[in-house]
Order: sequence, then C-alpha cells, then structure tokens
Amino acid sequence: MLNITFPIIQAPMAGGIITPSFAASVSNNGCLGSIAAGGLSIETLTQQIKEVQVLTSHPYAVNIFAHPRISDLSYDMKTVNAALNEIRKILNIPQVTDVALIEEPSVEEYVELCIQLHVPVVSFTFGCPDKHLVALLKDAGIKVIGTATNVAEALMIEDHCMDFVIAQGYEAGGHQGGFLKKPPIGLMSLIPQVVDAVNIPVIAAGGISDRRGIKAAAALGADYVQIGTRFLNTYESNAHPLHKESINQAAETSAVLTAAFTGKQARGIENKMMQLMTYHSIPPYPIMNQLTADIRAAAKAQNNAEFMSNWAGQNIRTAQTVSLHTLLNELTTDR
Amino acid sequence: MLNITFPIIQAPMAGGIITPSFAASVSNNGCLGSIAAGGLSIETLTQQIKEVQVLTSHPYAVNIFAHPRISDLSYDMKTVNAALNEIRKILNIPQVTDVALIEEPSVEEYVELCIQLHVPVVSFTFGCPDKHLVALLKDAGIKVIGTATNVAEALMIEDHCMDFVIAQGYEAGGHQGGFLKKPPIGLMSLIPQVVDAVNIPVIAAGGISDRRGIKAAAALGADYVQIGTRFLNTYESNAHPLHKESINQAAETSAVLTAAFTGKQARGIENKMMQLMTYHSIPPYPIMNQLTADIRAAAKAQNNAEFMSNWAGQNIRTAQTVSLHTLLNELTTDR
Repeated sequence: MLNITFPIIQAPMAGGIITPSFAASVSNNGCLGSIAAGGLSIETLTQQIKEVQVLTSHPYAVNIFAHPRISDLSYDMKTVNAALNEIRKILNIPQVTDVALIEEPSVEEYVELCIQLHVPVVSFTFGCPDKHLVALLKDAGIKVIGTATNVAEALMIEDHCMDFVIAQGYEAGGHQGGFLKKPPIGLMSLIPQVVDAVNIPVIAAGGISDRRGIKAAAALGADYVQIGTRFLNTYESNAHPLHKESINQAAETSAVLTAAFTGKQARGIENKMMQLMTYHSIPPYPIMNQLTADIRAAAKAQNNAEFMSNWAGQNIRTAQTVSLHTLLNELTTDR
Repeated sequence: MLNITFPIIQAPMAGGIITPSFAASVSNNGCLGSIAAGGLSIETLTQQIKEVQVLTSHPYAVNIFAHPRISDLSYDMKTVNAALNEIRKILNIPQVTDVALIEEPSVEEYVELCIQLHVPVVSFTFGCPDKHLVALLKDAGIKVIGTATNVAEALMIEDHCMDFVIAQGYEAGGHQGGFLKKPPIGLMSLIPQVVDAVNIPVIAAGGISDRRGIKAAAALGADYVQIGTRFLNTYESNAHPLHKESINQAAETSAVLTAAFTGKQARGIENKMMQLMTYHSIPPYPIMNQLTADIRAAAKAQNNAEFMSNWAGQNIRTAQTVSLHTLLNELTTDR
C-alpha cells in the first residue's frame, strides 16, 4: 500500500539530521525516506520537499508534529530559564533575560503545503489531527500515518481514518510520538496488542536495528518497520560527529528518557544537560525546545557532547556507524 | 540442554501463586515448571520440592532470590511505617509500632537444600551468586540459570559460569530480576544485544504472551522463553481471583513499575497502594516486602484489590484467563 519494495521506513528525524538527499537515497533504494517538518518554516520545508522530488520519483514521507500551538500553552518560564542561564554560563554564551517564543507554522499550514506539493505520504507525531485534516490529505491521494505509543492512541488514529498506524515502543530513540501521556510500552508487548485492536496496517518502531528485529516485528504481526538510530548513525547522516561517536561508545543502559531538551520525553544518551535538568519542572513542547535551542547550537559549535541532544534507541550496541549503502544492503538482504 | 520438549519456561512466582502441583503439571506437559523459594522457610521449600518430585519425573526449576540479607542492610523504617500505618487504618488492621524483621534463609542454605534434594534446575534473580556457589550446583549436576536485565549483568552471569541467562525486559510482570540498578531495557532491544554479548543460551522473558512472542524471541536469537502473566492468569493458578479479574479488565498502560510493595521495582496493575506510596522513600527488598506483608494479606482476606500486589506484564490484553490445559496447547502448537 505504500508502494515500496521493502517494508522499511527511515524514521523522520528533526534538527537537520536527515537531509533531503539522504531521504531521497533511502527512497531510491526501495525503502521509504522521510523528512521532518518539525519547526521548519514553510519556506524551508517547501525547499526541502522540492529537493527530495528532484532526487527521487519513489514515495517518501513528510512528518508533521501535531502538538498544541505555543499560543494555546501557558507556562511560567522564569525558573527554568534561570536554570538554563547557569548552563549558558558554562558554555560561555549570552544570558537570556527576556524569553521570546516564536509561533511555528500550524498543522493546517503544513498539511496545506503537503497537498500543494503532492507529497505522497504524510506521517504525524505528538498528536492525532482532526478528521477533516485527514480527509483533506486522503482526498488529495496522500497516504496518512499516525503515531501511537499505546492501544488507545492506535484506536483514535484508526477512528480518525488514517491509513497506517506506527506502534512506537519504549525502546525508541528520540521522541516518544504519542499524545495521551501514558507510560511507554515495550515494543514486543505493544505490537501484538495494537495488531489485535486495529484493522489498519501496523508499522513497528523502537529499537529495531537489524534483520532480527525486522523478522521479530513481522512475527508479532507488524506489516512494516520504522528504523531511526541505524539511519542516524551512518556516515551520510547530518548528525553531529560527537553524536555518532557517543552512540558507538554507549551501553544500552545509557540511552535514557528525558524531557530536558524539548519538553517532551525523548530517548538519548545520558549527559550533563539531562543531569542538570533532572530536578527542574520543565515546560511542554515546543516551549522547552525553543528555550534550549541556543544551548544545543552552542554545544554543537563547541564540540561539547554534554549539552547536545544525542538521541539514540536502546538497541544501541547493534547500531555502530556504517555507510548508508551498507545499511540498506544489510536491512534488505536475507543472509 | 534443559531436557524439555518445548523451549518454554513457566516463570517462578513467589507468594504462593504457583503451587507444586501447578509447576509439576507444566513439566509433565513438556515445558519447565518453576517454584519460587523467595522467602520460604527451609521446611516449607523442602515440602514443596518433594511434592513436585512426587508429581513429575520431568525437569523443573527452583528459583532463589540472591539479594543482600536483612542483617547487611540498614534503613530507618519509621517514616515509611508511619505511611503504612495510615493504610492499616484504612484496612482496619492493627497498627505496627515496633517493626520486627525476620532473617530469611540465606542463598547458601537454599542452594544446599537444592543439592540435597537433587533439584534438576536452579534459577537466580536479584543477584549474581559467587562462583563457588555456582560450582557447587554444577558439580551436583544441577543446571544453573541467572537473570539479567542488561548486557553487563548477562556478562557477569556468564563469567560466574552459569549455564543459561534470562534476558528480562522492561515489559515483564512482577519483579525486575536484575541487580545493577540500571534503567530497564525493552525486550526487543535486549535480546539481540545479550545474544551478541554472551556464548551461553539466552532465555527471553518479559511480555511474551503467545506464539507470536515465542517466534519473535527466536527471530531475535533467544533459545528459550520464560512466560509469567499467562501462567498466573489460569484458572488453576493460586493467584487471588481479584488479581485475575483485574488482569482481564486492565489496559496495557495500567501495568506499571512500582517499589511500593516489596522495595524492588516490580510491574503490577496500578492501584491505591502504589498511589499512596508514590512520594515516600521506600526501604530496599526484603525490608519493604516484610513491612507490607500484613497489608497484602489483609487486602486478600478482605477482597480489596486496591492494596494487593496485582503483578502483570505489559502484554496484558493478550493474557485473559484460560485453563492451564488450553494455555499449554496454545503455546506449544503451531496453528
């Protein structure tokens, strides 16, 4: 139904990790490449989608974050910003006194763009968009994917008439993509329960790293898999070199959940930023994400891995750096 | 190597849930039944082992908790006992003013008994016993199983010359059996990383519920599976009827980790006991386990599920009550 040769989706990763040419390469090799709209301006996203379209005639996906808008959130940012100012001191970057938040494009604007540009597949995380938005996409011939971290979310996604549901497990690197604020479910338990609950195809995500994981997901009833950390840890990805290095050196117990970087639970390699923010009350996404943007940018520029968001899933020991070519060969070939 | 027909182990469950005749039935049907020594007197355990031996000539396992002894732990129990006294008021049972802890049999005593009684298989949780204890068991022809929740623990278990390692995932019902105090790992990520790290056979545990899970574990490289919740939720098990009922009615997101009952992280269905103890500092196992024993016993006697430990794994929707006969047929038959 996704018109791809192999049932493998490259997980969308925001923050510039996956370039348009990377996603197009994945699609050209029979899997589904994805780019992430998350926080991009309409102009930048337009440019990225057009770049993908020049590079591939195969299906690809655009991922949209469907969280509440900043204007719908209220939060006292003084205390958390004071803590962040301590970190800014460590990095020797300017203190922030007046926090200025930027309203990002709405889900509706991103959806409109995807329809205009005839994007073949749209996936959502952090929310379950209204039925009318899903209908707009489907009427335009676009396949729609929702992200669930439990059965209740999967049922909502099916009820909103999306075509596919991602069942994302506790193990996943980066953000937990759900929206109902429930404890995460291990993928081995999540897949069969979602498969039993819905009638739409299920895409398994979270800690799937190699052919073993792909076969296990199929045995549990999944139709597709979505893989993140392995694609991130290729020579070709735009992840910071220290991010890749830290994945290569980490134990599986070091990839922990934190809201310290973005305000949403996400799994990354434990570092000083997470430790320093442990006992602070953290504002929701996208507020915290904007508050920490200067810190993350400075950490990257200064090659200081202690204040970067080094996202990684729990299957980290099987995710050493390889070339994209080797990875795609490995994932699509039975040995 | 375990001399069983099917690669399926019935997880040991303490607290009288699994009777000797239940474990023997499992063994008689080609799987490995297990009884749990956890906290039992040497006399009671002797009686239980002899009962199993009368009922089966097939292999079975005795599980031993290998945690530090009470005499090696120090903890101020006043504050937590004050909180427990509030719960005792709710249940209308006597207040406890002088906490009297009982020294339980040591790992060495349990091991000696297993050797004396020619137990075929011994499994350990909550610790990695000294090499000399493992050697004593192996010299007596006993197969030895250790429990790991991460790669470091699995490597220790192999280094201590045990024959098998259980890779227990985050999803597991009841106690997390590890000992290095690290965040739990989802089973789908844990199995391949443990399989890659050790040369001994790997037993997958945690949220495996049916043939799908058994096949997935095999695809990930496991040699055996250990299943708990499904065996607990049979008509034949000695779990409290309200415990079974609560499993049948629960969502997968309600089976959460708590130390409120025993002082060790264990997964059970969320209830008032967990909520009331959330913000208290909790003493380690076995102290907390002894402190809450009267509460759990009263809750059972009063049919009050809010203060029982209703252990269950995250694959709870696939674990409705069935007969042991039906369960064993289902688990061992390819359809």
